[in-house]
Amino acid sequence: MDNFLNSTSVVPEFVGASQIGDTIGMCIPSVDAILLDHLHVSKKFTVLGVLSSRTGAGPQIMAMDEAVKATNTEVIDVEWPRDTKGGAGHGVLLLIGGYDPSDVRSAIQVALDNLSRTFGDVYNSAAGHLELQFTARAAGAVHMAFGAPEGKAYGLICGAPSGIGVVMADTAIKTAGVDVLSFASPSHGTSFSNEGTVHISGDSGAVRQAVIAGREVGLKLLAQLGEKPVNDFPSYIR
Amino acid sequence: MDNFLNSTSVVPEFVGASQIGDTIGMCIPSVDAILLDHLHVSKKFTVLGVLSSRTGAGPQIMAMDEAVKATNTEVIDVEWPRDTKGGAGHGVLLLIGGYDPSDVRSAIQVALDNLSRTFGDVYNSAAGHLELQFTARAAGAVHMAFGAPEGKAYGLICGAPSGIGVVMADTAIKTAGVDVLSFASPSHGTSFSNEGTVHISGDSGAVRQAVIAGREVGLKLLAQLGEKPVNDFPSYIR
Amino acid sequence: MDNFLNSTSVVPEFVGASQIGDTIGMCIPSVDAILLDHLHVSKKFTVLGVLSSRTGAGPQIMAMDEAVKATNTEVIDVEWPRDTKGGAGHGVLLLIGGYDPSDVRSAIQVALDNLSRTFGDVYNSAAGHLELQFTARAAGAVHMAFGAPEGKAYGLICGAPSGIGVVMADTAIKTAGVDVLSFASPSHGTSFSNEGTVHISGDSGAVRQAVIAGREVGLKLLAQLGEKPVNDFPSYIR
Repeated sequence: MDNFLNSTSVVPEFVGASQIGDTIGMCIPSVDAILLDHLHVSKKFTVLGVLSSRTGAGPQIMAMDEAVKATNTEVIDVEWPRDTKGGAGHGVLLLIGGYDPSDVRSAIQVALDNLSRTFGDVYNSAAGHLELQFTARAAGAVHMAFGAPEGKAYGLICGAPSGIGVVMADTAIKTAGVDVLSFASPSHGTSFSNEGTVHISGDSGAVRQAVIAGREVGLKLLAQLGEKPVNDFPSYIR
Repeated sequence: MDNFLNSTSVVPEFVGASQIGDTIGMCIPSVDAILLDHLHVSKKFTVLGVLSSRTGAGPQIMAMDEAVKATNTEVIDVEWPRDTKGGAGHGVLLLIGGYDPSDVRSAIQVALDNLSRTFGDVYNSAAGHLELQFTARAAGAVHMAFGAPEGKAYGLICGAPSGIGVVMADTAIKTAGVDVLSFASPSHGTSFSNEGTVHISGDSGAVRQAVIAGREVGLKLLAQLGEKPVNDFPSYIR
Repeated sequence: MDNFLNSTSVVPEFVGASQIGDTIGMCIPSVDAILLDHLHVSKKFTVLGVLSSRTGAGPQIMAMDEAVKATNTEVIDVEWPRDTKGGAGHGVLLLIGGYDPSDVRSAIQVALDNLSRTFGDVYNSAAGHLELQFTARAAGAVHMAFGAPEGKAYGLICGAPSGIGVVMADTAIKTAGVDVLSFASPSHGTSFSNEGTVHISGDSGAVRQAVIAGREVGLKLLAQLGEKPVNDFPSYIR
């Protein structure tokens, strides 16, 4: 499972697509002014990048975080469909803006290329899923999506069904001294997904330690609902 | 695939059902007054029609638009479940009111009969879907559901995952001079569906041209996520 | 289909799990104070119980209602993911509080044990589902979740797709003199589920009669969308 098409010949806006999360990347070099007025963007750019998926918000946001670090682009909208094709979580719609179409296309491509890494700590079973994310230095995508302070370490600890996320959060926070940014649950801070997610920030070592501790208890709990959860790509958080 | 049951012998309220979108039509000749107080209707009628589906809001709304044109009935509620049985879109709950049960039953039947037409430009693939709708003259259902001016042409251009809808909207609006009513996206104007949808109004020829242009780019983009999207019924927008 | 694991050896927080609705029960003996501040609980307890499912909110809430009657615990949060693994309804996240971990573990276990009863009047087909619930004496879970007066009889009458619930509600209310607490529909009082649900209260005999009447018409209507709906466990409402 990997990027299966990167043809740019279909339509000029197409950048690339990936089977991972059914993710498609596009670039509009000069967006229609009336459409731009109807979009919910934090800042108006005429060069627009679009990253859109059925499954996974966190992985695409983390992938985009690397992309905006590497290019002269900004995340201007993060939207949260309740999707995952019948699963318990979200898809995502990410809009980015830039001054040059080649920058924006490049950012979208970087994000697509990062998906096999950022899906590394997504663990699925028939009953639910876990998601863990970590970055030593949060940038604009993680800031806009999760309220994380830019430049500091950030961690995401998520379990579904959502109650598993409550216990994962408790274990994670008790493990290391970290700042709790928020706890998202089905009726608060999600699009009614069945996820419990704690967002943490702080010292890089502490955040990583907390994420790993949350993962450990989450894997054991989710396994109680049947099969052992498995990741489709190698774990990147060690 | 078509209407498989139109028996009225089951319960008096039953009007008809269709496999298309798992749609059921009913009529309550004299609704309980206390229940009516608890419903969220724009106008209180005692004769109530109900059209309810698992998959597809747009097609049922367009079908009901024809039904209210043909009968002495009014749409009094449009509700948007996040459904499609694991897909990226909505189902719908439509309530209509009338003065005579036979009018209301007739309206519900007209709507059910129109579904094979209004599903004609719904294109599905494993990764997502597209929906296109067009009417030369919007009536009460389209007005209440989408804010379209009655009596004018109306078009709906929708893609899922939602980012595809952004590019479809941009292409459509650039193609012809139309009024943009709104752009609905996962976190704005939907029930967290994974759809990007532009609603347009204006001159009949221009709206039709814009819809067709949006469809063309949408079919190419969605095909990049794997298989070619297909419609289950013949396209009606030419 | 029944509880398949009740091992407590996995992690200390684990109480039990059930295949029924993919439901997991846990207990945190001393919740982290910062996490507690970020949870949305009506009252702060340090001993926390968690019941979390992918499918079914009503059955878990009714099961928890029995559990809080039987133990010194309180329901402090009810949250509504839009789930059921691609179905038309909700999952649930229930948090309870207590003064003693053994009380809380016992309450969670009682709730898990009640699931095969409270799923008795959940009827599924490929097109949708029905749910009926009844208690002669509502307690804290039903009160917090549905606004039912404690100590009085309570009934829940739900159909999906949601239009079926409208007709079920009309029939039920006309059958017996009951108080209508609320009518929940896709855009009002649900997490965009495709359910129409009337919540009723009053005299025990009247509530039961109304629930049974709603069930009868619901079974006939849902059957019109294809196959006869079936329950996985014996009906408990007679």
